[in-house]
Amino acid sequence: MLANTFDQSIQNRIDQKTKPLGALGKLEGIAFQLAKIQSLSLGYLATSIDVSNPHVIVFAGDHGVAERGVSIAPSAVTQQMVMNFLAGGAAINCFCRANEIAFSVVDCGMLEPVSDSSGTLVLSRLGCGTDDFSAHPAMTLEQATQGIEAGRNIVASKIESGANILMFGEMGIGNTSSASALLSAITELPVAQSVGLGTGINAEQLALKLALVQQGVDRVQSKSVMEILSELGGFLEAAKRRVPVLVDGFIVSVAALIAAKLEPNVEDVLLFSHTSQEAAHRYVLEQFNAKPLLDLSLRLGEGTGAALAYPLIKCAAEFYNSMASFESAGVTV
Amino acid sequence: MLANTFDQSIQNRIDQKTKPLGALGKLEGIAFQLAKIQSLSLGYLATSIDVSNPHVIVFAGDHGVAERGVSIAPSAVTQQMVMNFLAGGAAINCFCRANEIAFSVVDCGMLEPVSDSSGTLVLSRLGCGTDDFSAHPAMTLEQATQGIEAGRNIVASKIESGANILMFGEMGIGNTSSASALLSAITELPVAQSVGLGTGINAEQLALKLALVQQGVDRVQSKSVMEILSELGGFLEAAKRRVPVLVDGFIVSVAALIAAKLEPNVEDVLLFSHTSQEAAHRYVLEQFNAKPLLDLSLRLGEGTGAALAYPLIKCAAEFYNSMASFESAGVTV
Repeated sequence: MLANTFDQSIQNRIDQKTKPLGALGKLEGIAFQLAKIQSLSLGYLATSIDVSNPHVIVFAGDHGVAERGVSIAPSAVTQQMVMNFLAGGAAINCFCRANEIAFSVVDCGMLEPVSDSSGTLVLSRLGCGTDDFSAHPAMTLEQATQGIEAGRNIVASKIESGANILMFGEMGIGNTSSASALLSAITELPVAQSVGLGTGINAEQLALKLALVQQGVDRVQSKSVMEILSELGGFLEAAKRRVPVLVDGFIVSVAALIAAKLEPNVEDVLLFSHTSQEAAHRYVLEQFNAKPLLDLSLRLGEGTGAALAYPLIKCAAEFYNSMASFESAGVTV
Repeated sequence: MLANTFDQSIQNRIDQKTKPLGALGKLEGIAFQLAKIQSLSLGYLATSIDVSNPHVIVFAGDHGVAERGVSIAPSAVTQQMVMNFLAGGAAINCFCRANEIAFSVVDCGMLEPVSDSSGTLVLSRLGCGTDDFSAHPAMTLEQATQGIEAGRNIVASKIESGANILMFGEMGIGNTSSASALLSAITELPVAQSVGLGTGINAEQLALKLALVQQGVDRVQSKSVMEILSELGGFLEAAKRRVPVLVDGFIVSVAALIAAKLEPNVEDVLLFSHTSQEAAHRYVLEQFNAKPLLDLSLRLGEGTGAALAYPLIKCAAEFYNSMASFESAGVTV
């Protein structure tokens, strides 16, 4: 079977490194997967993995359901946070700076557009926010299709500019509500388990969020949400081009799950960065049988978990690429 | 109480950052601790944390008990691996390169000395390996004292050369046996629980290791082990100078535990990087009530877990230093 052609050769390379068998734990699995992606892409055994041009793309959009009060913050905060991204002041900016990761923000349809002189912003507006999915279709099917295409095109352009490992993040007040609705719509998971506390809502807000998500799930067109659709397109394009994607938390994982249902080979390029505090994330991870690298009790989004895990990916690549073998180092174990 | 003077101001700074309260999980605790160490050192509230000059120091030495067959490898491998460190081919070299961490190796007393032209090696030989601790004192008390002093001096010199966060590692066939003996000698933990599989020994080797460690613990002078004593001295000096130490796995943690018993303020500068596969590491971590950042199923030593966790420390510092506040970013949550 073609897909397994390189498995033994890659594992042999890893096992010949100057360390006890398996002693690098999860990093060995990461190195294996990256080497396999690269080998399948090259058509021969990759003796070196290149993840030297990481790129975080944060997709931003507004959710009509936010007007119902399902979050601690009003929709105006989406735009304010995008301004913060563009000024370099958000958590994701800090982590991208510390870990030397390129950074872009996509306006997928915020209530109000913003201007940018830094070249960080990509305009891809599908509208001025979605409609409230608890009462109406969030978007038209045309918008949804356009969202997926936009995600494909943005990712294609970043890969053509040299990105060789991607991370997606999102910003949009109300986005965990949308992600929970999508998750319950495409899996068996009841709304009571797909809905969580998001950024930290109170009991009253939680009851409202549960009711509204349930209404959305009970309808059909609820599955159309701007940033998630763009991320979904991004996953599809990355898989097509065999570029690894380091998956962030709950919302991005839901996008990945939908992408993998559309195209099973998406799963081959996914690396999982962290386990979010948002309870339903564990369920999504189980669907992939994924064991993420980090568990830091994060619940922020923006791609922060992926950006924090990127140095581990870089270290996995570095040990695969340049760690000595027993033979080359003259070690007699 | 002086020690708590800065707590509220530091927490306020963290809580004003543009993120939901607590959303950065464990990184917030790291930022808090680093800011406190720096504030206590400065005598006023640190508004910026500096961890920009990390340094890994690997202490290498041989253990007489290794001759009894408690490891998968013979003592000759200690020297071979030190040569590998000096040539840049070991896992710790890969991770230091990927994460831009300075690297030194200390010869604390390998069976045979090695030469080095790279400036990476520090000579601090207490002898040509220790004696077999299961049958004799591993070292004289004079050697032990000298070992602690050497560790202090090496760390003092690295700090004076600019290092502002330290990581210790070790190399020496037989070192988990010595660490287990020390652990059971200074705590209530029975040998059956302090001894583990090390680099992956078989059932017969494990039975031998258990018996020999028990013999050592039943004697008094068994507590003298070269690399661990040097690391111990290193912890004492780092604490005195209020320089944070990112603690690696089982063996380094045992050294930290002994240091903390000698000087309780050692604990203030300790950050815990990862949970090792060596079973007794969890017990040592519990003594510190520590919740390490990573759990990657590592069992390699060399300081690799600390080097892998360093980028998370850098990210914690970066968010503390330069993430916008709600006020500065004009975010209205």
